[in-house]
Amino acid sequence: MKTSEIALVRRLERAAATTLKKQVRLGIGDDAALFYPRPGFETILTCDWSLEGTHFLRNLHPPDSVGWKCVARAISDIVAIGGEPICFLLSLAIPESCTGKWLDEFLSGLRRAAGRFGCQLAGGDTTRGNTISINITAVGEVRAGRAVLRSGAGPNDKIFVTGTLGVAQLGLQSLQGKGGKIRGRDPSLKRHLYPEPRVALGKWLSARRIATAMMDLSDGLSSDLPRICSASGVGARIDAASIPAPRLPNPHLHGSNRTDLLALALNGGDDYELLFTVEARRAARVPRSFQGTPIKQIGEITVGREVKLVRPDGREQILPARGWDPFRQS
Amino acid sequence: MKTSEIALVRRLERAAATTLKKQVRLGIGDDAALFYPRPGFETILTCDWSLEGTHFLRNLHPPDSVGWKCVARAISDIVAIGGEPICFLLSLAIPESCTGKWLDEFLSGLRRAAGRFGCQLAGGDTTRGNTISINITAVGEVRAGRAVLRSGAGPNDKIFVTGTLGVAQLGLQSLQGKGGKIRGRDPSLKRHLYPEPRVALGKWLSARRIATAMMDLSDGLSSDLPRICSASGVGARIDAASIPAPRLPNPHLHGSNRTDLLALALNGGDDYELLFTVEARRAARVPRSFQGTPIKQIGEITVGREVKLVRPDGREQILPARGWDPFRQS
Repeated sequence: MKTSEIALVRRLERAAATTLKKQVRLGIGDDAALFYPRPGFETILTCDWSLEGTHFLRNLHPPDSVGWKCVARAISDIVAIGGEPICFLLSLAIPESCTGKWLDEFLSGLRRAAGRFGCQLAGGDTTRGNTISINITAVGEVRAGRAVLRSGAGPNDKIFVTGTLGVAQLGLQSLQGKGGKIRGRDPSLKRHLYPEPRVALGKWLSARRIATAMMDLSDGLSSDLPRICSASGVGARIDAASIPAPRLPNPHLHGSNRTDLLALALNGGDDYELLFTVEARRAARVPRSFQGTPIKQIGEITVGREVKLVRPDGREQILPARGWDPFRQS
Repeated sequence: MKTSEIALVRRLERAAATTLKKQVRLGIGDDAALFYPRPGFETILTCDWSLEGTHFLRNLHPPDSVGWKCVARAISDIVAIGGEPICFLLSLAIPESCTGKWLDEFLSGLRRAAGRFGCQLAGGDTTRGNTISINITAVGEVRAGRAVLRSGAGPNDKIFVTGTLGVAQLGLQSLQGKGGKIRGRDPSLKRHLYPEPRVALGKWLSARRIATAMMDLSDGLSSDLPRICSASGVGARIDAASIPAPRLPNPHLHGSNRTDLLALALNGGDDYELLFTVEARRAARVPRSFQGTPIKQIGEITVGREVKLVRPDGREQILPARGWDPFRQS
């Protein structure tokens, strides 16, 4: 059956037709989407690639997960600045062979994520491509002046992270080991396939003006922490023993040892946990967990521009950026 | 020389660093861009693919044109709804081999278009891809309630188009005939490579509440007019003799005859002219040209849902949608 662009747009309309937010006026099918900004709020705009071959593999990743994850990843950037997700645009380029079952399952995952994070599909652009290319534009709002930028960290600020780092990477390894067959309840696999941006915590930290700088951990701590430092003109010292690395993995499943786990936590990507800094005098206001998500203090901001790791034996070393970089051959 | 993602982001920062609009607060380099909506205005959001193989060919289209056109196309969607372009996000996925000269020239064209249409590069996402994939998210504003949708056309409204239709298609044919070698001053080639969205006219038509429905002609009149009709629950009758087809092409260059030229005007894509409808009693308020762009009345909206073409001999026929559809094999 041949698919025309119009038929595809109709299917996207149905995927969007769940609950159109009052703020979002025009759905799919016009030249553009329209939305009413709330007075006193700034608009947050971000866009995020999910490319076959770069971000996922068609034979390894279930289409439902691809749909969920592309939305979750874009929303995570809204969350990382302290905002509330409002709506998103879906740009989808797919081969003719993916317009059937693949697309149905993809849209199902996308719709579930949209519902879970309260973010309305508001429009997009669909075309044919030789491989699957997805780009999500997410739109959010934050009360004027409350956005938490990467550039706000100051010397002596304490550094915090949420959750356990490296779990998504562990999940990817597990998925690769199984050749894409998903069985049982490996929580790391779930984290890799269906990440959960920390929407409520991001809003809470910006609304209470607790975080001085914030970003989401998408490429891995060793690559992302230097970005906050560079934007803020500071450095950092983090404590290896404090870093929430994965524990007790099934060695038959992952074959990991203690050192591997620290490396995973430092360099593993795709966790979408929050990394943020807080002035030392307000650090006590950060709870140990927020709605079930643990929050861990891992170090502090320094005047010196280096990013250093204090090893368990007390030695300090410069932390090499070994997180995910799409332009580095792995 | 290896390119890291950070190095690429720095080059994009320089491309954006021209004149940051007061409304756009955060440039490239944070998780997201921030912008202050003007009170009393709605925000317009649109995204638009430019994919190698689907929308352009690396060996045929100069990178400077690819950069200009991806911005112009996205802005045209803002214009088509009666809005004013404010800023845009660039999502770019490129092979390592394109991070040198190709990227420099691409960014040069992109920057020129951004300046020409007053639309600020405000952020984006850059990654590696096996082919060149570009997605532009354009953001605009329109005074609340003044957006001109596709759904507003009513029976007896007059139908107007700007410019000459089919010129960009003629330019593509000319480019293909020359194997990508650009010589002389073929104006159709310029239209194909460097389209000019009708920014001022779109704003004028919405500000004066003259247009009842509007869209931009991206896929071709025979495919785009049915979209206004379908959204508005009406049909249309257009007059072949009134359609502004290209004239006097160099027959040695294009080998076109009169019939071909009408087909070009009906089915040729990529013109980015405006198609709009106006109540019959207000049709006289539409000027014959606006800032040098001719405006032509080509027919009227009908109660019956068909889209019909009145041929020069007076016969009526249903107009088949033969514009560009990425899912139709040509």
